[in-house]
Amino acid sequence: MSGKRGHKSPDELKDRHREILETAARVICERGYEGAGVQDIAEACGLTKAGLYHHIRSKEHLLLEIQNYGMDVFEEQVLQQVLPIADPLERLRTCMEKNILLVTRGWAKEITIILHEHATLTGEARAQINARKKRYVRFLETSFAEAIRAGRIRPVNPKVAAFSFLGAVLWIYKWFRPDGEVGEEQLVREMQDLFFGGLETAPAAPRRGSRARAARRS
Amino acid sequence: MSGKRGHKSPDELKDRHREILETAARVICERGYEGAGVQDIAEACGLTKAGLYHHIRSKEHLLLEIQNYGMDVFEEQVLQQVLPIADPLERLRTCMEKNILLVTRGWAKEITIILHEHATLTGEARAQINARKKRYVRFLETSFAEAIRAGRIRPVNPKVAAFSFLGAVLWIYKWFRPDGEVGEEQLVREMQDLFFGGLETAPAAPRRGSRARAARRS
Repeated sequence: MSGKRGHKSPDELKDRHREILETAARVICERGYEGAGVQDIAEACGLTKAGLYHHIRSKEHLLLEIQNYGMDVFEEQVLQQVLPIADPLERLRTCMEKNILLVTRGWAKEITIILHEHATLTGEARAQINARKKRYVRFLETSFAEAIRAGRIRPVNPKVAAFSFLGAVLWIYKWFRPDGEVGEEQLVREMQDLFFGGLETAPAAPRRGSRARAARRS
Repeated sequence: MSGKRGHKSPDELKDRHREILETAARVICERGYEGAGVQDIAEACGLTKAGLYHHIRSKEHLLLEIQNYGMDVFEEQVLQQVLPIADPLERLRTCMEKNILLVTRGWAKEITIILHEHATLTGEARAQINARKKRYVRFLETSFAEAIRAGRIRPVNPKVAAFSFLGAVLWIYKWFRPDGEVGEEQLVREMQDLFFGGLETAPAAPRRGSRARAARRS
């Protein structure tokens, strides 16, 4: 098939493919997966339907490709960057930073939406994406557990901590505006501080409902 | 029109209407809004298409009704319950509890999905739902600001705090399973503790990147 597009270099083809995935993501977000026809996606890409089929296998496979592309970028820009950090707390704080910045600027917003809101994939394809997402959850859980063992954070449930981290960070795509009152650097600092530092004043003093924690400290 | 269903009491009609909204929400989540025909929704409700049109105006209006129903339940079970609490920190902690329990047991999961993932509404209908959601965000922001002024929590950005709270709480519908390893009461305690108490050990000691906070304390 690539012979038909013989004039383009592999890098150009890769860029073109990525462009198609991002455009398709936008169309799918606008019209819904069921509502977005292959014809609509082709037109938005400036292609004929036949031309689009040179690049994609089927609409369902396109959705899988969009999700895999999103996970590729995520793993490259977040997970791979922080895996080597030895200190678990530093690893988690940096991970939060990288993930926030990915949501605020690293990605087309539509990629996030399709990754987290579109359950349209089925069977093998769905299992493949879910396994990649689960790997991230496991990484977070393991890092929280490690930070607890190392005495870097208080004993908490690593699963609840992992999903609270994820929820706070991923929800950003729903409200953050690049031209809004909170800038991305401020957002990173504030969220790290909120999540790892907590909110209450004088947290060292025992308070209602935290006897267990106070006991652990003394 | 109600004369045609003369045998049912107003309460029965209300229950039946709620049942239709929940069933329709399930069908829309399964097939997507575009993919779910009025015929499919009617069948799932055990009605003919004509029968369903006794209860609904149109598919788009049905989607609006589902979202308004979700917001009604939310306001009744969460917002109205905590508005009277005078202490802002206690108000926020209780609000977190009520909202978590709404997500874990108060609602059909599909209602949450439709409220937070379906941007299919347009024009007036969309504006109406967005205004109701914004009211909650404003309530959270105001409570955080009040808690800061009262010295109940550290100075943070109320907007970032409000959306982090929301993200962590609403993300629960994506991962929580009633028969999972974390029970709902434990989830409430853990999330309140995480969010308001923070994670780091000995947070009173200055650490990298928190000089400003240490300075505010001394």
